[in-house]
Amino acid sequence: MATQGQVITCKAAVAWEPNKPLVIEEVQVAPPQAGEVRVKILFTALCHTDAYTWGGKDPEGLFPCILGHEAAGIVESVGEGVSEVQPGDHVIPCYQAECRECKFCKSGKTNLCGKVRVATGVGVMLNDRQSRFSIKGKPIYHFMGTSTFSQYTVVHDVSVAKIDPAAPLEKVCLLGCGVPTGKLLHFILRSLGAVWNTAKVEAGSTVAIFGLGTVGLAVAEGAKTAGASRIIGIDIDVKKFDLAKNFGVTEFINPKDHEQPIQQVIVDLTDGGVDYSFECIGNVSVMRAALECCHKGWGTSVIVGVAASGQEISTRPFQLVTGRVWKGTAFGGFKSRSQVPGLVDKYMKKEIKIDEYISHNLTLNDINKAFDLMHDGASLRVVLNMHV
Amino acid sequence: MATQGQVITCKAAVAWEPNKPLVIEEVQVAPPQAGEVRVKILFTALCHTDAYTWGGKDPEGLFPCILGHEAAGIVESVGEGVSEVQPGDHVIPCYQAECRECKFCKSGKTNLCGKVRVATGVGVMLNDRQSRFSIKGKPIYHFMGTSTFSQYTVVHDVSVAKIDPAAPLEKVCLLGCGVPTGKLLHFILRSLGAVWNTAKVEAGSTVAIFGLGTVGLAVAEGAKTAGASRIIGIDIDVKKFDLAKNFGVTEFINPKDHEQPIQQVIVDLTDGGVDYSFECIGNVSVMRAALECCHKGWGTSVIVGVAASGQEISTRPFQLVTGRVWKGTAFGGFKSRSQVPGLVDKYMKKEIKIDEYISHNLTLNDINKAFDLMHDGASLRVVLNMHV
Ligand SMILES: NC(=O)c1ccc[n+]([C@@H]2O[C@H](COP(=O)([O-])OP(=O)(O)OC[C@H]3O[C@@H](n4cnc5c(N)ncnc54)[C@H](O)[C@@H]3O)[C@@H](O)[C@H]2O)c1
Ligand SMILES: NC(=O)c1ccc[n+]([C@@H]2O[C@H](COP(=O)([O-])OP(=O)(O)OC[C@H]3O[C@@H](n4cnc5c(N)ncnc54)[C@H](O)[C@@H]3O)[C@@H](O)[C@H]2O)c1
Ligand SMILES: [Zn+2]
Ligand SMILES: [Zn+2]
Ligand SMILES: [Zn+2]
Ligand SMILES: [Zn+2]
Repeated sequence: MATQGQVITCKAAVAWEPNKPLVIEEVQVAPPQAGEVRVKILFTALCHTDAYTWGGKDPEGLFPCILGHEAAGIVESVGEGVSEVQPGDHVIPCYQAECRECKFCKSGKTNLCGKVRVATGVGVMLNDRQSRFSIKGKPIYHFMGTSTFSQYTVVHDVSVAKIDPAAPLEKVCLLGCGVPTGKLLHFILRSLGAVWNTAKVEAGSTVAIFGLGTVGLAVAEGAKTAGASRIIGIDIDVKKFDLAKNFGVTEFINPKDHEQPIQQVIVDLTDGGVDYSFECIGNVSVMRAALECCHKGWGTSVIVGVAASGQEISTRPFQLVTGRVWKGTAFGGFKSRSQVPGLVDKYMKKEIKIDEYISHNLTLNDINKAFDLMHDGASLRVVLNMHV
Repeated sequence: MATQGQVITCKAAVAWEPNKPLVIEEVQVAPPQAGEVRVKILFTALCHTDAYTWGGKDPEGLFPCILGHEAAGIVESVGEGVSEVQPGDHVIPCYQAECRECKFCKSGKTNLCGKVRVATGVGVMLNDRQSRFSIKGKPIYHFMGTSTFSQYTVVHDVSVAKIDPAAPLEKVCLLGCGVPTGKLLHFILRSLGAVWNTAKVEAGSTVAIFGLGTVGLAVAEGAKTAGASRIIGIDIDVKKFDLAKNFGVTEFINPKDHEQPIQQVIVDLTDGGVDYSFECIGNVSVMRAALECCHKGWGTSVIVGVAASGQEISTRPFQLVTGRVWKGTAFGGFKSRSQVPGLVDKYMKKEIKIDEYISHNLTLNDINKAFDLMHDGASLRVVLNMHV
């Protein structure tokens, strides 16, 4: 390839400062070093996790940086020692790496690989602890090890999933983040069921979902597939209710319609509480409500939303001592390199929905408009075409 | 029996007011009504749960009352419709009822029976919402549905476990509470292992136990039996360390010896945190430390201690989102009527320790001294002989 080994100059949306509109700049993208892959990003979606950092709420957020972590593209070139992908491969960059060698990867219990975190956590690459992005010599930080708001990006080889080249990149880009979170919950429900009593979960579990955005809808679909009997959706935005029905939500509650705390409303409505609850907003008081609306003795609450930094969840220990379980999930527990390609295959076989989560298609130049759409709550996912 | 159907006058330790020494009084114990059992208590132990209520820390604590919930005795008489026990049976009153009919009992997921809670929660019996205890006509409240600091007590039939008559009551009285909490953890470890990867838990799990009192020691023994490789005991009282070794604790940490937060000390010591942690003190900040010393990705923390009322646990949601699980346990998850007799059998077969938890044998008259011993931390369990 003509570009291989060369610095590529391309367009990227740069976040110069927290809360200031992103600026489309010409950036220089250095060639991949050992263990790195340079990817031509074709499509990227926007996610609230990007907005949190952009909004200055992430204490680890470094500026200037290139945000973005839900994307799909094609490998442009690879660095030394990279064997699992080669130029031309279709890939999804994954913010959760999977090295298959560290104790996390080997534990069989978690998808939280520890290999590159020390570098991605501070916006650089592992090899030389430098950024591959610069503008006229001034380095621009990486974000989440992905930085997909650029026409070209450099990622660690352990953070890239090779997928079926027949898959439409403008759709499967979503599998880089949001949708698996929901899908995974489908698997969580199944696993919990396997532990306790598969039939009960499959056939008649009650589920409460707080927040009916992309993540909440995916959770709803997962719960529906798992055979939940009641899927209660809770959202303060009534506009979310109609769409949510298509994803399996059977009942709606708007907390604003009730004087009592929402957990009490749900406990009353469900004769003691739900079997499973999911917080899909990122609000710590809702996280508490989600735990406390679970049934005594066995209810399990899963935190999916990402709270603003420094915020804390709290409850009375009695809530746990009486049998509730409090958990969380990052990236839905999926192993990125091993399992994301399988999700793409499921999409191709129409076993999982993706198209339904996409509400707008825009271009890189419209990225600030895309963030506005997201903030207004008017959109599900906005997908940007990076090369028009 | 001569006493059947009659009011029995006997000795009991009455808590007239929070924090005031208990007074040995002559109390009248009414005959059991429908679904009730009157038990001659032969031996009772003291537990911190009694001390909490006595100390006025339990908002549901009602005075005057008769405390006590770890005991063993013999059925004196039974009320109408009681079929599972009869006069002469050796029994352990259980503060956690098991009716086998309510949705909790039928769920297969919890031991938290809901049948009599509405009455025991307010210090009375279910049948007529009255107390069976009185002194010269003035009612004295029941406590935890057991009130074992009396020579005779009345309990619901769903709250009494019939045990092997050959079992020494002065030992097995402990199975009414503390020890199962620990034993159960043995079972929790086994169950978690079954879920994730039995071999790993059995062979090499790391465990942190906060508080090396009776409960913490029982947890240690359970972890040892489960095959834990490292059992780290944390206590601010260095005197606890020698005894704890006999129960399987392999390493000790005194938080006072460290400047760093104890969770950081443990994370550093264990290359990222322990697989399981147990809070056996009842201190909400220790509960947080116990969660946070767990390994990212899979560490599970179980709250066993009982915090003072109104206190709250808190942490950053990130702790859960990165894969830690926060749970609790009440009565160790044992079903009282179904499983306590089996624990007694295990004791008889020397499969579980009880004797080692008993440090002092006193009499009912010495009950205030027994509480002092417990407060001074000089004792494990004190067992009172109720009829000398
Ligand atoms: N764990 C992960 O891997 C992962 C992945 C993607 C997103 N997330 C997080 O999940 C959360 C949801 O993401 P999303 O894209 O679905 O967001 P979204 O903004 O599309 O949806 C959030 C929904 O919550 C509703 N809401 C807000 N406050 C509420 C309240 N107090 N009570 C009830 N409803 C309320 C909003 O009306 C909206 O419908 C965010 O915190 C995001 O950062 C986590
Ligand atoms: N869940 C249940 O079913 C159940 C049953 C019995 C008891 N409990 C509860 O379990 C807890 C422990 O009971 P126990 O009988 O073992 O009590 P205990 O007093 O015998 O033991 C507590 C230990 O914790 C240590 N400790 C106190 N503060 C500490 C700190 N900040 N850091 C480290 N160590 C500290 C003390 O030195 C002591 O050794 C209590 O809260 C009790 O109410 C629960
Ligand atoms: Zn790894
Ligand atoms: Zn995302
Ligand atoms: Zn019951
Ligand atoms: Zn007790």
